[in-house]
Amino acid sequence: MNAAVPGRISPPPFETLAPAIWRTNVRIRFSHCDPAGIVYFARYFDIINGVVEDWFSAALGLDYGEFIGPRRIGLGYANCTADFVAPGFMGDTLTFAVLIARIGGASLGLEVPAYRDGAAVLLGRMTIVTTSLVEHRAIPLPDDLRAAVTRYEGECLEPR
Amino acid sequence: MNAAVPGRISPPPFETLAPAIWRTNVRIRFSHCDPAGIVYFARYFDIINGVVEDWFSAALGLDYGEFIGPRRIGLGYANCTADFVAPGFMGDTLTFAVLIARIGGASLGLEVPAYRDGAAVLLGRMTIVTTSLVEHRAIPLPDDLRAAVTRYEGECLEPR
Amino acid sequence: MNAAVPGRISPPPFETLAPAIWRTNVRIRFSHCDPAGIVYFARYFDIINGVVEDWFSAALGLDYGEFIGPRRIGLGYANCTADFVAPGFMGDTLTFAVLIARIGGASLGLEVPAYRDGAAVLLGRMTIVTTSLVEHRAIPLPDDLRAAVTRYEGECLEPR
Amino acid sequence: MNAAVPGRISPPPFETLAPAIWRTNVRIRFSHCDPAGIVYFARYFDIINGVVEDWFSAALGLDYGEFIGPRRIGLGYANCTADFVAPGFMGDTLTFAVLIARIGGASLGLEVPAYRDGAAVLLGRMTIVTTSLVEHRAIPLPDDLRAAVTRYEGECLEPR
Repeated sequence: MNAAVPGRISPPPFETLAPAIWRTNVRIRFSHCDPAGIVYFARYFDIINGVVEDWFSAALGLDYGEFIGPRRIGLGYANCTADFVAPGFMGDTLTFAVLIARIGGASLGLEVPAYRDGAAVLLGRMTIVTTSLVEHRAIPLPDDLRAAVTRYEGECLEPR
Repeated sequence: MNAAVPGRISPPPFETLAPAIWRTNVRIRFSHCDPAGIVYFARYFDIINGVVEDWFSAALGLDYGEFIGPRRIGLGYANCTADFVAPGFMGDTLTFAVLIARIGGASLGLEVPAYRDGAAVLLGRMTIVTTSLVEHRAIPLPDDLRAAVTRYEGECLEPR
Repeated sequence: MNAAVPGRISPPPFETLAPAIWRTNVRIRFSHCDPAGIVYFARYFDIINGVVEDWFSAALGLDYGEFIGPRRIGLGYANCTADFVAPGFMGDTLTFAVLIARIGGASLGLEVPAYRDGAAVLLGRMTIVTTSLVEHRAIPLPDDLRAAVTRYEGECLEPR
Repeated sequence: MNAAVPGRISPPPFETLAPAIWRTNVRIRFSHCDPAGIVYFARYFDIINGVVEDWFSAALGLDYGEFIGPRRIGLGYANCTADFVAPGFMGDTLTFAVLIARIGGASLGLEVPAYRDGAAVLLGRMTIVTTSLVEHRAIPLPDDLRAAVTRYEGECLEPR
């Protein structure tokens, strides 16, 4: 998996992550892995979604479930990409981080790199679009979400 | 979901697909969908992997399972991207097509657009890297795979 | 996997299935399988749910999606069981059948055996409970569902 | 979902669980839920498998991944059942416990009940069969596994 692959993008080196960047550990389970013995690529997107959910509550102070549920605000993806740098194996503990790539009018760009013992494993990149689940159309980022991601982005830019 | 989103790429219009481009229908199931009532994004990658599996046998005349199994050749992804243009709903029948984007030395770039009634729903793009599952390193595209994708690419370029 | 296991129940022999019993083929994919190289047990339940969905339209003439969607009638399981008789491997084509075990007031018992080349692979058994997705309580089997399963049960009991 | 359903079995009341019974909390995610807004039944089996994995290391002091990997000992299920007593919703924190139901020659019966705020949600029951992943046949419970589950069973039977 170490051959140069056209267009593959590596995560930022682990040691360059600002201390304020939120991170979480995910243990790779039996069920995450495929017959090749490594994490099934589609499962990584599911893991990343869980990381983003936890980031909402832990780093933004917002309840992901309330958006989808009572507030009827979708947090779906307009696009998402994963670049796989090294395979993940059952029993690995991977560290995922969440970085803000872009705060738009009705969208939010995130980068979610993952590391094993400080070495890059993958880089997820995605654009969340806030939508009305009632009218099925894009809506501006809600004020509380905009405020929270703006604050988080600022903290992550502060020098160590 | 129709707002302009920075960087989102649409599939080629359905009517521009060359007749030789292989396609298959996938019915969207209850289990593909999330609490927002639309196909869960990670599940699309799983669906796309199944489409690629079927394309191996139906269009390339190769057995996907034999690569992973007896031949011990991994067909993992170096990267993959999905651009979501419109949501998919339970009960939808989506038509997926497989296009060759690039034939490399040890990699194969694919585009997998999906349509509902001829309207674009999503565009998957991925780079398959052929690896030795014994030595866990990239290996050149096996001759039969290279021949098959070269033939398929040629057929898809022929004028109608 | 052939050791006698306390309480494990085998499917009915394939050759004893009445001709009217609806059946469908499922090809086992890469993504269905786990690092042990066989179908991941939880994935079987997902496959079985898809079989039941297809049985609704193909054998009962009812639209599964309309129940959950516009009619707001849940078709959830009160319980489900799988007895695994032989492992399923990538590339296998398994034949699933749907049998009525019991038609209740607000529930429907099904048996879903699966076979490979006529040999038993697993037996799924489940109880569907019809619920109001608005009031979140059990409701009597809707008339069209009751009529359809009663008719199907009768057809399956007819001598060959 | 509260209607009496034939054959449905409830978990033991939460307050009757012996203190030594190992338990773990699982937060219900967006991706666990289906279009009916509740945990998708097949996903529960995946969650239960993760609970059993964690129980291996936390309560038995054994490494689940080493069984499947270097030791080539399968821990597959001969059968599994779930009785669903109440639906699980996104954002719920469910407490799962692991009880020994039976220690056999080449099998291990487990009960995995789940609770929300002390109220029963579901009861999983399964029989693990230890197999050789090389020869694909049942093998006696390895000595370390037998010793660990026997010890755990004893601890769980001690009076409070």
